[in-house]
Amino acid sequence: MAEYIRYSYPNLKRFCVDAFSKLGFSNEDCEIITDVLLLSDLYGIESHGMQRLVRYHKGIEKGLIKPEAKPEIVYETPVSLVIDGHDGMGQLNSHFAMTKAIEKAKISGMCVATVRDSNHFGIAGYYAKMAADEGLVGFAMTNSEAIMVPTFGRMAMLGSNPIAMSMPADPYPFFFDASTTVVTRGKLEIYNKNSEPLPNGWALNKDGKGSSDAADVLKNIVAKNGGGIVPLGGETEKLGSHKGYGWGMVCEIFCSIFSMGITSNHTHQNGKGGTCHGFMVIDPNIFGSAEDIKEHLSTFLKELRESPKAEGQARIYTHGEKEIEAYRDRMENGIDVNINTVREMVDFCKFAGLDVKDYLGDVKFEENGSESSYN
Amino acid sequence: MAEYIRYSYPNLKRFCVDAFSKLGFSNEDCEIITDVLLLSDLYGIESHGMQRLVRYHKGIEKGLIKPEAKPEIVYETPVSLVIDGHDGMGQLNSHFAMTKAIEKAKISGMCVATVRDSNHFGIAGYYAKMAADEGLVGFAMTNSEAIMVPTFGRMAMLGSNPIAMSMPADPYPFFFDASTTVVTRGKLEIYNKNSEPLPNGWALNKDGKGSSDAADVLKNIVAKNGGGIVPLGGETEKLGSHKGYGWGMVCEIFCSIFSMGITSNHTHQNGKGGTCHGFMVIDPNIFGSAEDIKEHLSTFLKELRESPKAEGQARIYTHGEKEIEAYRDRMENGIDVNINTVREMVDFCKFAGLDVKDYLGDVKFEENGSESSYN
Repeated sequence: MAEYIRYSYPNLKRFCVDAFSKLGFSNEDCEIITDVLLLSDLYGIESHGMQRLVRYHKGIEKGLIKPEAKPEIVYETPVSLVIDGHDGMGQLNSHFAMTKAIEKAKISGMCVATVRDSNHFGIAGYYAKMAADEGLVGFAMTNSEAIMVPTFGRMAMLGSNPIAMSMPADPYPFFFDASTTVVTRGKLEIYNKNSEPLPNGWALNKDGKGSSDAADVLKNIVAKNGGGIVPLGGETEKLGSHKGYGWGMVCEIFCSIFSMGITSNHTHQNGKGGTCHGFMVIDPNIFGSAEDIKEHLSTFLKELRESPKAEGQARIYTHGEKEIEAYRDRMENGIDVNINTVREMVDFCKFAGLDVKDYLGDVKFEENGSESSYN
Repeated sequence: MAEYIRYSYPNLKRFCVDAFSKLGFSNEDCEIITDVLLLSDLYGIESHGMQRLVRYHKGIEKGLIKPEAKPEIVYETPVSLVIDGHDGMGQLNSHFAMTKAIEKAKISGMCVATVRDSNHFGIAGYYAKMAADEGLVGFAMTNSEAIMVPTFGRMAMLGSNPIAMSMPADPYPFFFDASTTVVTRGKLEIYNKNSEPLPNGWALNKDGKGSSDAADVLKNIVAKNGGGIVPLGGETEKLGSHKGYGWGMVCEIFCSIFSMGITSNHTHQNGKGGTCHGFMVIDPNIFGSAEDIKEHLSTFLKELRESPKAEGQARIYTHGEKEIEAYRDRMENGIDVNINTVREMVDFCKFAGLDVKDYLGDVKFEENGSESSYN
């Protein structure tokens, strides 16, 4: 069982901003990175929040992530942007791309931005939400190191390739953020940590056969031996494997193809990350009244929530409700941080010369059993 | 086992054009409708081709489909179109919408068209392909009579809500066309006809529990008793039900929400169909060189096809390959038409005063066992 320590949002925010400052980012950039990471924790998506710090730090040390890089617009039209991320932080490249796409969409009605040579950007939904916060419809996606095995294959060729969409609605915006694989790598890591067998229909061994052995699958992915996670829809066409694989392709096209960047199967080779992102913004006013459209969507979402439940089910969710509820709870009651992540934060404080007690309180760990990724 | 009679493409085309002419459509409109329906048969998607004739005929008789209706642009900007279909044929409204969207995208770089008050439009992929044939990236989607039960629900609230995307590539274009349900209603109908139990993870009974009884599920859908088909990803979150449900929502937003049309749960009420469609076109030149982008995609598709196969699998497909191969085969060798569909075509000839032998050859049926949908 995982142990947690609870911290308030302002407490974590201060740590996060100061940590990234120590890694060489400007104040403004630290605020952006922190905002992206902590929204993930506030939304209950622990895998993409605070706990990424150590991976980003390692990425910087290896030269994969360049803290001083600035995104550059290399091609644009009134409805498009092609951005070279110059190996900078994914969050900074993506915040820049979405900000510019929103500006253009407000003038032209819509805009697609495609970004190459970037890095892990956190949760896709953050950037889709940036548009929804402005009354617009936002899409965000990213490719990643290959982890999705195409239907009938045995080598991972696409990333987890999440696609997010957000759109204004009452009382909650529509907020859909999902990998096009059946699950993300983070889920496999949790099963591995707990030594639990994987459910059927999630992962493949190096021969392309179904596997419940999380440790073996993860080991093979890292070593590029074969195997990986199956597309949404499973490993055969019977439950729609080709559909998840198709959605993975749609993501890849907006990210690496439009940008002439590196496709998922070639990322993280020869000391280069090369992650690519895609963004789209649509101003609903191009269809008439954004207010009427928002109300129309809100009505449909309400009808969905109020429609009859399956036997034994108490509630039908619309996309974004769980995140909004998690957000309210964590803002009020604090965020539970996994003890291993706290350990990494302590180690980072020591590395960077930050006062552990001031930032993280009086934490004590047993001498043995450390699982810190710092070494 | 289903019996089939093989006809050449020109033969079926002549029948189809003349049949729709008898239903009151102009020559030009008959050509468009026929082209959409027969591409489906040529692509091997029997459920959306010729066999729809009887359903369209019934729709016209019931007043749901108005052959004389003309699509009307009710709102537009340089990047958008809102079209009222005035209850006309879905194929005609959609062909019109996509033609206009292509025109605008060629000028503005991209365009979204949303259509309300239309009818069944055939295969979504046809319209996405219209854009790809012009060197553009095309998307097409439609809502439909509710058949998808949202995660944890027991009433169908969304349609099968297919989304198609097509984009130029060598030697085949990328052509992805998939419902956001795990399977379409057509699949259930085939299992029902063959009295086979449905696979696990496809459908729900009226209480929202998994069901293998195709006849019962179909009966309940028609009577709106509850139950239906589950989203891509199944009935629980474990395999990603909420993701297929989310994709169904994306489709619904482009179709019924942007157009201020009728959402799937309210279609086919009070003597009105009300199907809505959504289309998007992106000119890849807005990202630089369309030729370079096409080549980049072609390379990735080739790498996918050539990547290592799972044990026991001979081939990895990219999206659109199966359709292209079916097309070539059927253009050369003819199209197999289900005997029940031929029976409906014969009945239609008699109804419309077309010479059966001239159009369909010397077909003979046993007196009993007719399954014609004409009565």
